[in-house]
Amino acid sequence: MPDVVIMKEIKGLNETYAEENREKFAADNVLAVNIMGAPGAGKTSFLMALCDKLKARGIRSAVIEGDLYSTIDTEEFANAGYRSLQINTEGECHIDANVIRQGYDRLGFRDGVVFIENVGNLICPAEFDLGEGLRIITASVPEGDDKPYKYIPMYSYVDVVVLTKCDLKEAVGFDTEYFTRGLRALNEAPVFETCAKAPADSWGVDEVADLVEAKYKSI
Amino acid sequence: MPDVVIMKEIKGLNETYAEENREKFAADNVLAVNIMGAPGAGKTSFLMALCDKLKARGIRSAVIEGDLYSTIDTEEFANAGYRSLQINTEGECHIDANVIRQGYDRLGFRDGVVFIENVGNLICPAEFDLGEGLRIITASVPEGDDKPYKYIPMYSYVDVVVLTKCDLKEAVGFDTEYFTRGLRALNEAPVFETCAKAPADSWGVDEVADLVEAKYKSI
Repeated sequence: MPDVVIMKEIKGLNETYAEENREKFAADNVLAVNIMGAPGAGKTSFLMALCDKLKARGIRSAVIEGDLYSTIDTEEFANAGYRSLQINTEGECHIDANVIRQGYDRLGFRDGVVFIENVGNLICPAEFDLGEGLRIITASVPEGDDKPYKYIPMYSYVDVVVLTKCDLKEAVGFDTEYFTRGLRALNEAPVFETCAKAPADSWGVDEVADLVEAKYKSI
Repeated sequence: MPDVVIMKEIKGLNETYAEENREKFAADNVLAVNIMGAPGAGKTSFLMALCDKLKARGIRSAVIEGDLYSTIDTEEFANAGYRSLQINTEGECHIDANVIRQGYDRLGFRDGVVFIENVGNLICPAEFDLGEGLRIITASVPEGDDKPYKYIPMYSYVDVVVLTKCDLKEAVGFDTEYFTRGLRALNEAPVFETCAKAPADSWGVDEVADLVEAKYKSI
């Protein structure tokens, strides 16, 4: 089928750019983190909490926001004092390594963590390596505990799983054991529980910050 | 860019198949309904409730289930006594008109409503006309009230908006007025409120059934 062939060609080019990004991040003492998740999974709220935790530890963060058209999330990070950049994909369903290459140069950032908030999509972003050093998925509890059984490429692709909106666990009957069993069939990624509504109790964000800090310091 | 050219070619072919599907549905006295939504939006639960409402009115339903790999949802419909067929996209992010053409022939169904539950994705399915007569999006309240502002092509594409998990409205602070204002900038689609947890109170599903029934009887 012609579309499969073409997809491979695009992916081949993407791999080249991803490799270039990886080298550039290393040279700049930057840890790049790709944040993925379904629409409304709470990527932005989680990311804001994580940036604040890292800031308190003296680690600088910058944010590249991927969105189809809007700039809502980028403004939020700019208002909070973080260096941020918008990538409008103009309807495209993922961010690719080439657009990150261009965006990263414009960001002009070194010695810290660059978070890339991907487009809300549990499918296509798992096919595009950005050259990142860490891949996080935010999975909201109301999405349901069956998602690792259904979105297999994405749940195989990630290094860290962040459960969000955990205050709704009882209300929606989320079975963490069932979710984790599905994940473990694919992946040994650690699972952290978070809740943006009760950030004081959001011990999970602290744990993710520990992990990001350790990863940053090891580059 | 080569990928844009190719996307147009694929879409051109898709339009041809979609037109053929439309003619076949009309000849078979079938209303095809494309159900879209984000992962975990509650597409399957809503669809089951809708099929049951239509059954009570003497209208037959069949279901074509699109999923990356799993057959969880198809089994649910088969167990409930509905003619159903699984389309595994093997990782592809949408259903296209060609695969519906093949799936519909195998379904062997006439004189009723064929529901197509698309892959959980708010982006790519809006680019692939399936030849359907009605497009419904299920939007879960926990996804947030800003989605029409962010997923513009999808919210422009649909004929009907079904809010799901409305029992969580207060818990997540969903602002229906803000959501609807964003939608109205794109689309005059009616909005129905539903809750699979309290089906007896799910007046919204009855209203969607009214709309589907009227549409089916007008073909």
